[in-house]
Amino acid sequence: MLKVVNIADGFRRFDDLFSPKIVGEVNGQHIKLVRVEGDKVPWHTHDTEDELFWVLDGELQVLTRDTSATLHPGEFTIVPSGVEHRVVPHGHVKLVLVETDGIAHTGGVKAEITLDRYEHLDDL
Amino acid sequence: MLKVVNIADGFRRFDDLFSPKIVGEVNGQHIKLVRVEGDKVPWHTHDTEDELFWVLDGELQVLTRDTSATLHPGEFTIVPSGVEHRVVPHGHVKLVLVETDGIAHTGGVKAEITLDRYEHLDDL
Repeated sequence: MLKVVNIADGFRRFDDLFSPKIVGEVNGQHIKLVRVEGDKVPWHTHDTEDELFWVLDGELQVLTRDTSATLHPGEFTIVPSGVEHRVVPHGHVKLVLVETDGIAHTGGVKAEITLDRYEHLDDL
Repeated sequence: MLKVVNIADGFRRFDDLFSPKIVGEVNGQHIKLVRVEGDKVPWHTHDTEDELFWVLDGELQVLTRDTSATLHPGEFTIVPSGVEHRVVPHGHVKLVLVETDGIAHTGGVKAEITLDRYEHLDDL
């Protein structure tokens, strides 16, 4: 049985912020949907995991210590492992993430938004 | 330096069919853009790699030996490793693929469309 994931339907099923929902797994990578709004993500680093940010709606500024990029709908960027970064949403932003199964939400940094685990959208 | 990939811009840069272009790499997975049209993909299996198909434009039927799903824009499915499959585009279809670096294009099957390597979009 092939499971079809409809991204828009997925987003309609939750409205909490900074809480990525797992919607698929491919070769040890989780595909996640997340809504973000407000400047709440601390500087953090994933020592061994790259992280892909794909904007579907809204604008997302992705910052490293020495550069910055603003993503618009239909654009993605990949923050390589070991690079300290944070993201700043402009408005309400819908994102797709591609991240290693088990990645720490905000690296080794604990913040207001930090989660210990991720929900699977099917479990909501 | 963060590289921003604009998906629509990427598709404007090529028009060949069944020839996935690598636009990013995240944790050993390649993000690829591909245009497909016509019923040309043979039944094949990737023994050790899952494969994610995400439709941006058009419709794609994904078949295994015992099931079938039709993907519309904004929908994806993941064919698990070891599952024989093929895809049938309905019209001209733009797809994003997430696949392991080095995956064989049509598994162990050689077909008219089979490629030995993938181009990086930046090299075009």
